Order: sequence, then structure tokens, then C-alpha cells
Amino acid sequence: KVLWTVLVTMLGYSSSLPVGEDALCTAEELAKYRIIFTGKWSQTAFPKQYPLYRPPAQWSSLLGVTHSSDYSMWKKNEYASNGVRDFAEKGEAWALMKEIEEAGEKIQSVHGIFSAPAISSGTGQTSTELEVHPRHPLVSFVVRIVPSPDWFVGIDSLNLCEGDHWMDEVSVDLFPYDAGTDSGFTFSSPNFATIPQDTVTEITCSSPSHPANSFYYPKLKILPPIAQVIMVKLKKSQLGLSAPFINLPAKSNEIIDTVS
Amino acid sequence: KVLWTVLVTMLGYSSSLPVGEDALCTAEELAKYRIIFTGKWSQTAFPKQYPLYRPPAQWSSLLGVTHSSDYSMWKKNEYASNGVRDFAEKGEAWALMKEIEEAGEKIQSVHGIFSAPAISSGTGQTSTELEVHPRHPLVSFVVRIVPSPDWFVGIDSLNLCEGDHWMDEVSVDLFPYDAGTDSGFTFSSPNFATIPQDTVTEITCSSPSHPANSFYYPKLKILPPIAQVIMVKLKKSQLGLSAPFINLPAKSNEIIDTVS
Repeated sequence: KVLWTVLVTMLGYSSSLPVGEDALCTAEELAKYRIIFTGKWSQTAFPKQYPLYRPPAQWSSLLGVTHSSDYSMWKKNEYASNGVRDFAEKGEAWALMKEIEEAGEKIQSVHGIFSAPAISSGTGQTSTELEVHPRHPLVSFVVRIVPSPDWFVGIDSLNLCEGDHWMDEVSVDLFPYDAGTDSGFTFSSPNFATIPQDTVTEITCSSPSHPANSFYYPKLKILPPIAQVIMVKLKKSQLGLSAPFINLPAKSNEIIDTVS
Repeated sequence: KVLWTVLVTMLGYSSSLPVGEDALCTAEELAKYRIIFTGKWSQTAFPKQYPLYRPPAQWSSLLGVTHSSDYSMWKKNEYASNGVRDFAEKGEAWALMKEIEEAGEKIQSVHGIFSAPAISSGTGQTSTELEVHPRHPLVSFVVRIVPSPDWFVGIDSLNLCEGDHWMDEVSVDLFPYDAGTDSGFTFSSPNFATIPQDTVTEITCSSPSHPANSFYYPKLKILPPIAQVIMVKLKKSQLGLSAPFINLPAKSNEIIDTVS
């Protein structure tokens, strides 16, 4: 049996997804996945201004949605919704959950919402399950970088369907984004609204091109991934009673590179 | 049609549940519920030492489980597990998720895990869905009080099954508990392990009986509820595409008393 694994590393994966690709999904049934988010925000990898106190480096709850191409949670170079702004700035999920709910009711573009618990350090893990549907095969999520002005990592409209079948495993390296709603340059910048609002932009080691930027590492070509997400399709036998954790390590900071 | 509503207010509801009551559940199918958690931790209701900065009063992610009476997430007057300790002290969910997973694998006592996003203020709301099974009709969850030494609110083994049917709606007022693992007296006490570990105790307006206790209000008979949880059974028509939010308010701090 072929193991379908897609490893998208250091690329803007979302730009490689043709618009409307989900319309081609001919898989016959729902599929369930375990999603495992791994924070890789260590002081070793990101020494500059690494937050140690009040609060130390950590990750917010993960909030995600499975949907069709008629819905978009967030998109690079577009304006963040009010819900994404509240989440990226404060970790407040309610407005974003309401936006998703409304998209589900009005245009039937949403299959379901999922969330996973916050991680209390920069390098831990969290996990939950999600369900995709042939008409709603796309996955999007956001996790706020804490502390930060309005920075987050996430995935925008990753298609888990490949023609007539669901992918077995997908792994994506994640890099920081700026929601464009707060003008702070550093992890601990005071709140300072960006007016007018800017679009969502990727933060790189050279952009914003200013030495005060917490991710400004002029000697690097690219930042190391600050987080990683793996989605693994659950077998039918794993559904129902007791969701399996696929033999995850006992401690969340024993970082894993693969779960297969 | 009778609307089954259980309102348990200012009572130790868990003590009213006969042990093993879940064995009597003869409901025929699974049931899905929307669970809505409302923080009522306002400065008006709890003026003493109300945390305004670094961090302000807020709630962690909600982590819950549906299970049989063979599993217990936490219990008043018993010792907290390592997972509950990590969650109550730091909001770190991983060890607790692993404990739940192991209980599910070893003794089939767990149906599923659920979580809802954190709330960035003392008075907001969060929500998710959960599924119960006739052999796993009990619901338990924890939400950490932030900031605090090891304080949390939650539910222990609430039975959603009544004989041959599932309850339509359950509302429970929540009061603070001390996990017994950190000896801090106030919201912002520094970390100070309790050795040997103490049992989980309810914090009241008079216990711990010490003026330094953040919840010590000698003029009150009982504390106001610091949070509330409502579980509403979803109709079959509400399942599948797009989970309904049962017309929740647009902002999470428009506190609601009922959703029916």
C-alpha cells in the first residue's frame, strides 16, 4: 500500500493549491484525521529577544475549520477578518468561531470546527481530531504566538483530498505571520493598532527589514520552522471508542519528526 | 415534548450522583451536545486582588472527556493526577491527554476527548461539541483559572443519561477548586510546591480560612459562581454539516443565562 505523504518544507504551500481544487474531490466518504501541532520555538533556534518571563514563550489554543473553497479563514496578502484579528492579538476565539458558524449557516461552506489545547512553552505539542467531507476537504487553522503583537502560525486551505482518496499523512513546516492589525515589532511590544489595517504578511529573517524586528536575523537565509503540523488519517478501526494518539511521546516537549 | 432541564446551583452536584449510575443507561444511540462555558469572573463579583495585568484574569483552554465510571479525571477530596496537576498549575494539557488516552486503551473507559479555546478575559465564553455513548455517558472537564497557583473549575462525572434517554439541557454553576499541588494563597503567588501533595479541595469564601486567600470574603455566606457551563443536546437535524451555535451572542462577554 502506498503511503501518501506530502512534505511541504519552507515553501508557501498555499500558493501551490489551485483555486477550487476541492471541487474535484471524488472520495466517497468522510475521513477523520488526528492533527498534531508541535511548537519548535526554542531559545536555541530563536535566541533573539526570546521571551522568558511574563509570559514566557508559548502557544495559544489551536482553532481550526474544515471547509470548501467558498470559505477562507485567513489568506496571505489579504486583510484579516475581525475574528482573526481578535485571535491573533489576544487569543480570543469567540468572534472567529462566530464567523465560521455564520459561513456554515449562510453558504454551507463549513463542515466543522476543531480546537486543541494551548501549549505552555515554546516547544511542546498539542493534538485533536478533525473530520473532512468530500465537499469540504480543506483544512485551515491558526495558533497565536504568545507573547506577540498579532503574530500567528497556521495553515490556509490545505486540501486533504487527492482525486478519489484521502491523503494518509501530511506534514507542513510553519513560519510566522503578521495579521497586519498591530504595529508592534517585538514579542513584547505594547498594543499599537495599525491604522489603516495592513494585510496578512509572512515574517521572515529579513522582513520586516528592521533590526528591531524579533525575527530579524540578517545572517540567515531563511528562518528555521517555528512549528510543525502533522495530519494522519485514522483507520476505520481507530474510530469510535477512544481516539488513538498514535503512540505520541509521554512528554509534549520530546519533539517528534514523524509519527508513522 | 418535555424539556429536561437540570439546574444545579450552589450545590456539590457530584456528590448527588450515585456511583455506577452510568451502568443503568439504556439510551439506544450516541448523543451529541454543544457545551458552552461562560466565565463570570468579573471584578465586580470578585473585587479582592482581581488580576488586571501580566496576566489579567482569564481562562485556559477547556479540556474534557466523556467516559464510564471506570475512569475519573479528578475528584473532590482525592489526589490530583500528574496530568491534572500540570493542567491546573500551568495549563499544560499534554500529560492529561496522555492519561485519558491510556485509560481509553487499557480499560475502554473513555469515549472521547474534547477541548474548547481559551478565553482571554474573566467574563467571556467558549464552546465546543462533545459526544456521549450509552456505555460512556459521563462528562468531566477542567478549565484552569489564570493567573492562579493551581486553581481550576470543572465538572466531575456528570451523567447526561437518564434511564432510557439523554437529557436535553444541563446547566451547572461552577466554583473554584484547589488542585492541592501548589501552596500559593493568591492569584499571583509564586510557584511553591505543596509537599506532600494535598487532595483536591473546594475553595470557598471562608476556606482556606486566612485573610490572604484571594477568595476569602468573610461577609459572604457563599461565593457567587465564578463560571457556568451549559450542555445542550443537538437535534439530529443539527448534526453533520456545520455545527450550530444555538444563536449565541456576537460577543463572548454578553453573558447569557440560558440558551433555550
